[in-house]
Amino acid sequence: MPLELETEILNLTTRHPFIIARGGQSDYRTLMVRIKDADGHEGWGEAAATRFYGETLETVQAAVAMYAPLLGDDPHQLEAIERRMELALRGNAAARAAISSALHDLVGKRLGVPVWRLWGLDAAAAPQSTFTIGIDTAEMIRKKVAEASGYPILKIKLGSDRDLELLRTIRDATDRELRVDANCGWTAAHTVKMLPVLEEFGVTVLEQPVMPHDLDGLAHVRRAARIPLIADESCVTSIDIARLAGRVDGINIKLAKCGSLREALRMIAIARSHGMMVMVGCMIESSLGITAAAQVTPLVDIVDLDGAALLRNDPFEGATITGGQLALPDAPGLGITRR
Amino acid sequence: MPLELETEILNLTTRHPFIIARGGQSDYRTLMVRIKDADGHEGWGEAAATRFYGETLETVQAAVAMYAPLLGDDPHQLEAIERRMELALRGNAAARAAISSALHDLVGKRLGVPVWRLWGLDAAAAPQSTFTIGIDTAEMIRKKVAEASGYPILKIKLGSDRDLELLRTIRDATDRELRVDANCGWTAAHTVKMLPVLEEFGVTVLEQPVMPHDLDGLAHVRRAARIPLIADESCVTSIDIARLAGRVDGINIKLAKCGSLREALRMIAIARSHGMMVMVGCMIESSLGITAAAQVTPLVDIVDLDGAALLRNDPFEGATITGGQLALPDAPGLGITRR
Repeated sequence: MPLELETEILNLTTRHPFIIARGGQSDYRTLMVRIKDADGHEGWGEAAATRFYGETLETVQAAVAMYAPLLGDDPHQLEAIERRMELALRGNAAARAAISSALHDLVGKRLGVPVWRLWGLDAAAAPQSTFTIGIDTAEMIRKKVAEASGYPILKIKLGSDRDLELLRTIRDATDRELRVDANCGWTAAHTVKMLPVLEEFGVTVLEQPVMPHDLDGLAHVRRAARIPLIADESCVTSIDIARLAGRVDGINIKLAKCGSLREALRMIAIARSHGMMVMVGCMIESSLGITAAAQVTPLVDIVDLDGAALLRNDPFEGATITGGQLALPDAPGLGITRR
Repeated sequence: MPLELETEILNLTTRHPFIIARGGQSDYRTLMVRIKDADGHEGWGEAAATRFYGETLETVQAAVAMYAPLLGDDPHQLEAIERRMELALRGNAAARAAISSALHDLVGKRLGVPVWRLWGLDAAAAPQSTFTIGIDTAEMIRKKVAEASGYPILKIKLGSDRDLELLRTIRDATDRELRVDANCGWTAAHTVKMLPVLEEFGVTVLEQPVMPHDLDGLAHVRRAARIPLIADESCVTSIDIARLAGRVDGINIKLAKCGSLREALRMIAIARSHGMMVMVGCMIESSLGITAAAQVTPLVDIVDLDGAALLRNDPFEGATITGGQLALPDAPGLGITRR
C-alpha cells in the first residue's frame, strides 16, 4: 500500500511582531505534513516557507501535492524518495524538508528509536540555543530581554539604520552573551567599520553581514574580524560549502534551505572536512519543525532553534529549551506530541 | 554493563598470489572483532591491515586493545564512540573500521534491520562489482580471466614493466569491460603516454596512476584523459577530497583507509558536493569486511569489492557477487553468517 500523505495549515502567532533587516510580521502560516504507513504509524513534518528562498504556503502546498505520489510504499527508502522528489521538482526546500521530517519520524516510530539515536548520536551533546531579539523600539527591546531571562545567549537582529541604538539598549539591559545577525543588511566596508563596535559591545558571533553572493565581501570581513563569521543566506545546500571554506568560519544550516535531514547531515560532514564551524538555525515555525532540526544538533557548535519559543500558540511539544539548554525528546521518531 | 570486545585472527589464502605494483603474496591475516552487548547480541567486524597505510596485524591488535575500553555500554552511541577512539589514538584506520563495522552490525541486529536499511538506502541500487586480475604471467592471466568468467567487468593491475604485455594478453583473452589500477606505479608523464594505449585497449576507468601526493600530476593526467580518473592512494579520508576536486573525476573509498562506516558516508557526501564520482574498494579480506563496505554501495558509482572473491577459504557468507552483481544481505545488521 502506498504511503498516504495529508496536510494541515498551522496558524502561528509570535508573541511580538518578529522583525529582521528584511521586514517582519506576527502571523505565520506553515504546512504540517502527515505521512501514514499501512501499519497505522504516522510521521509528521512542517514546512516553514519563506519568500526569501522562493516559497510561500501556496507553493509548498503545490509542491507537496506533486511529491506525495512519489513516496512509494516503504518509508525506509529515504535516499531513493529524496532523489525521486529532486528529479520531479527542484527547489521547494521547505516542502521537501517537511516530507523528509515526516519520513524520519515514521521510520523512527517503526523501529522504536528516536531519530538522533537512529543516527548514532548522543542527545546530551546538543549545545545551548540562542534566543533572538528582533528589531524593535528601545522599550520593546528591554521588555523582550526581560522576557528572555531564561536564555543565557541572545542573538540580535541588526542591519537597519538603528543598529547602534539597538546594541546600546540591549547591552544596557543585560550582560548576557550577544550574537549578531545582520541578515545581509550591511556592505562589507560597513561591516569592517562595525567590527570594533561589535567587539566593544562584547558580541561573540557575527552572522551573514553581507549579501548572499558577496563571497569576496565575506572574505574581506573575515580577514578583519576577531569573532567567528557565519554564512547563512550565502549557504543554502552542500554545494555552497566548498567555496565558502576559507572565507567564513562556519555555516548556518536550516531545513527550510537545504530541503532534508539527510542533506543537513551531509552539510555537517562537508563543513567539518573543511574545519568549519556548524550552526543550525530555523524559521518561525512550531515545535514540529524545530524538533526535526534539533535532531542534528549533537553534531553542531551553535544552535539557534528559538522559532517555536517566539510563538504565542505552539501547537506541539517536542524538543525543549530550558535555561537555554536544548533537550531532545527520548520518544521514538521525532518524539513530538500535539498539545 | 560495558560492551565486551573479543578478537580472532583470520588466516586467509588467495586462490592465486595477488600481485600489484608494490608486490604481493598469497597468505593474508586479518583480525576479526566481535562486540557483545548485555542482551546477548553480537556484532562483527574485520580489520584488513596494509603496511602501505601503516598497519600490520600486530598494530591492529594493539590498537583494538586500546580502543576496547572506550566502547562504553551503548552501541548506538556511534558518533561518540568514534570520537573517543580518534582522541585516544589517531591513525590505525583498519582497527577502527573493524570496530565501526562490529558496532553497526550490533545496532542493526538490536533494531532488527539491515544496516543499509537503517541508513535509508535501497539495496537494489548497488552497482556491479569488478573482479581484479593481479600482475602475473601471460599463462596465469589467461587462466584467471577464464576463472573470472562470471564477472562482466575486470580490473587489471598495471604499474610494472610488463604493462603492455599484460594489456595485450588480457584483451586477447576477453572483450569484457576493462578498468586499470596502476597503484601509483607511473609518473604523470608516463601516464599521459599510456592514455592512448589504454584507450586502444578499451580501458574505461583509470585508478591512481601516480604517487599519492602528486596532485598536480593527477590534474595533468586528467586534462589529457578521456576516461574517468579515480584517486585511491591520494584519497584517504574526508579532508583529502576538496583538494582533489577538479584534479580527478572521482575517489575510491575503503574502510581500511577511512576508519569507519560513518566516515565512508561522510566522504560520499563530500565527493557528491563536488560533483565527483564515488568508488568503493577493499583490501584482501573476507566476506566480513566486504559486506561491511558493501552497505554503502547503493550510494556509489563504481564497486570493486572482490577481496573475498579472490579467496580460497572465505570463512563467512554475506554480500554476494553473482554475474558481477553485488547483492546485499537482507538479514539484520551486516547480515553475515559463519560458514
